Amino acid sequence: MPTSLIRKEIDEALLAFVDRQRPGLLAISDDLAPLMAALDALLGGGKRLRPAFCYWGWRAAGGGSDGGIVAAAASLELLQASALIHDDVMDSSDTRRGQPSVHRRFEALHRAQGWPGDATAFGEGTAILLGDLCLAWSGEMFETCGLDDARRRRGRAVYDLMRTEVMCGQYLDMLEGTRGEATVDTALRVVEFKSAKYTIERPLHLGAALAGADPRVTAALTGYGLPLGIAFQLRDDVLGVFGDPAETGKPAGDDLREGKRTVLVALSLERAGPAQAAALRRRLGDPALDRPGVDELRTIIEETGGLAACEAMIERYTGEAGRALASAPFPDEARDALAGLTVAATTRRT
Amino acid sequence: MPTSLIRKEIDEALLAFVDRQRPGLLAISDDLAPLMAALDALLGGGKRLRPAFCYWGWRAAGGGSDGGIVAAAASLELLQASALIHDDVMDSSDTRRGQPSVHRRFEALHRAQGWPGDATAFGEGTAILLGDLCLAWSGEMFETCGLDDARRRRGRAVYDLMRTEVMCGQYLDMLEGTRGEATVDTALRVVEFKSAKYTIERPLHLGAALAGADPRVTAALTGYGLPLGIAFQLRDDVLGVFGDPAETGKPAGDDLREGKRTVLVALSLERAGPAQAAALRRRLGDPALDRPGVDELRTIIEETGGLAACEAMIERYTGEAGRALASAPFPDEARDALAGLTVAATTRRT
Repeated sequence: MPTSLIRKEIDEALLAFVDRQRPGLLAISDDLAPLMAALDALLGGGKRLRPAFCYWGWRAAGGGSDGGIVAAAASLELLQASALIHDDVMDSSDTRRGQPSVHRRFEALHRAQGWPGDATAFGEGTAILLGDLCLAWSGEMFETCGLDDARRRRGRAVYDLMRTEVMCGQYLDMLEGTRGEATVDTALRVVEFKSAKYTIERPLHLGAALAGADPRVTAALTGYGLPLGIAFQLRDDVLGVFGDPAETGKPAGDDLREGKRTVLVALSLERAGPAQAAALRRRLGDPALDRPGVDELRTIIEETGGLAACEAMIERYTGEAGRALASAPFPDEARDALAGLTVAATTRRT
Repeated sequence: MPTSLIRKEIDEALLAFVDRQRPGLLAISDDLAPLMAALDALLGGGKRLRPAFCYWGWRAAGGGSDGGIVAAAASLELLQASALIHDDVMDSSDTRRGQPSVHRRFEALHRAQGWPGDATAFGEGTAILLGDLCLAWSGEMFETCGLDDARRRRGRAVYDLMRTEVMCGQYLDMLEGTRGEATVDTALRVVEFKSAKYTIERPLHLGAALAGADPRVTAALTGYGLPLGIAFQLRDDVLGVFGDPAETGKPAGDDLREGKRTVLVALSLERAGPAQAAALRRRLGDPALDRPGVDELRTIIEETGGLAACEAMIERYTGEAGRALASAPFPDEARDALAGLTVAATTRRT
């Protein structure tokens, strides 16, 4: 794992926050213990990319070794936990990070206990509430990170914008999915708000704002972060179709089964002959899509040239990010770490 | 409408905040306009009780005419909007404040547009995201209310606790519901966290903390607010069964159809003969419960003495709140306003 992820420091801050919440919850009721266990399990996984970009945005803007930045950065992992928990409900996903998704976990608890009510509704309701709790706790962790009021006031403007953008981006994503058709252009617009800004540009801006960055640094972070964010999401599209379940923690071809209208799918449809397009449209979003069906769609996505076009886009956007980074006015240590994160975000297998 | 609700001031602050968000959303995409329309419709209703208790908690603690307190108080209405939107998904409720619930509204939009995807999933997914947005915006509105950093730091501790408590309380409520049985004691425990603290005690504490209340005032607010909060929820239980749809904005007997395990139901079951108990258990939570079925259950709840016992509890808790208020160390104007809110919270018909 690259040291640029500063994984250990982020994990410690996250664990410390969650552990501060634990006694309060259990004082309300022992019945809340399964909520904490589900959160512990979810937070045990994850790449901590958003906290890492936030931390290095701070360093890129000249921020020093103030402990508060690590907690502020780690608060983004609770925002991400909230988004994942709610996303899995909306997509009816069974797994997350190689384990049952939160709603499935509580559905299983309901069945195991033999309770008389509706197990599915109980699982989904619990996931909605635990996602809400993570969203509230992300805000709480940010505000109590230990950085002073003036820094937090600057950072909060970015943090608030980031939350609004990701929720709107998710709505647009769902809208494209339910309308059933997306061009490369409309899919890229969703990528911008749902992923590129949320995962990379805004975390960088948040760190920079907390450090008191001047506008030149903020603009340079956009020049680097936006194309990298697009490349990151395109890599995600590829992994969602071709990824190894042992590494992604998701079943093979999960995005195909969910019918996600990704840039990769749009690129393939653009290049598909009539028979290929009909097969893609027919089987995309089929919840019963089995392994041979996944293989058939993978073959189409390769044979149309959609996969190669997507890889070429990843290379182009990654190159753009790299050139922006090379000429950015950042301290050397930050530039080197961000170069490491560039590789981590675009060549990852999970 | 009692002036103690300071409805006009709260509404203006809420509208000003939402109007500040509007251009940012529409700049992302015109497709987000239906989200804003749904929020406008939801915020058009509501009693603004939590903001009012927050404001009068501030005044009870000696707070003056600082404009920031109104915005801080109004931020609780966005927290409540989030809770209502998510609650309606979890309960599969069709209506809220006399209009379609948010998830039904977007389900209808999906059908009206003739989109090919799953209309129900689209409605629920949108409601999850809009509830998330309201939760995030509540935090943003609180932090940008205009009160200074020191006041907000004191208030934030209450605000954070309140969010955690209500989410945990809702989980416990759902847990009691799905387990299918609740005693008067377990139902009261849910009432404490889900309603009494969330609706009345914590809003009072939040206002008091923002004003820099001394512990004597905070304790007096608990002495008044907790019993009043219980009485408030018991009135809600009664309205959920016996309320007039024209006034509550919910179909007649909606709580019976949802199978809510309220204190009122527990009091009735405690007093029911075997035939009455069997009929109650059989029809509670029946989604197909029609008007004669509602009438049958209403009759049982009356004939067992459950309704009278519930009304007696409301009177007892309201009396306790009134006595606490009479001896509390609050300025006269705050005491008078809180006396008005006591009546509004416990004798309301909506």
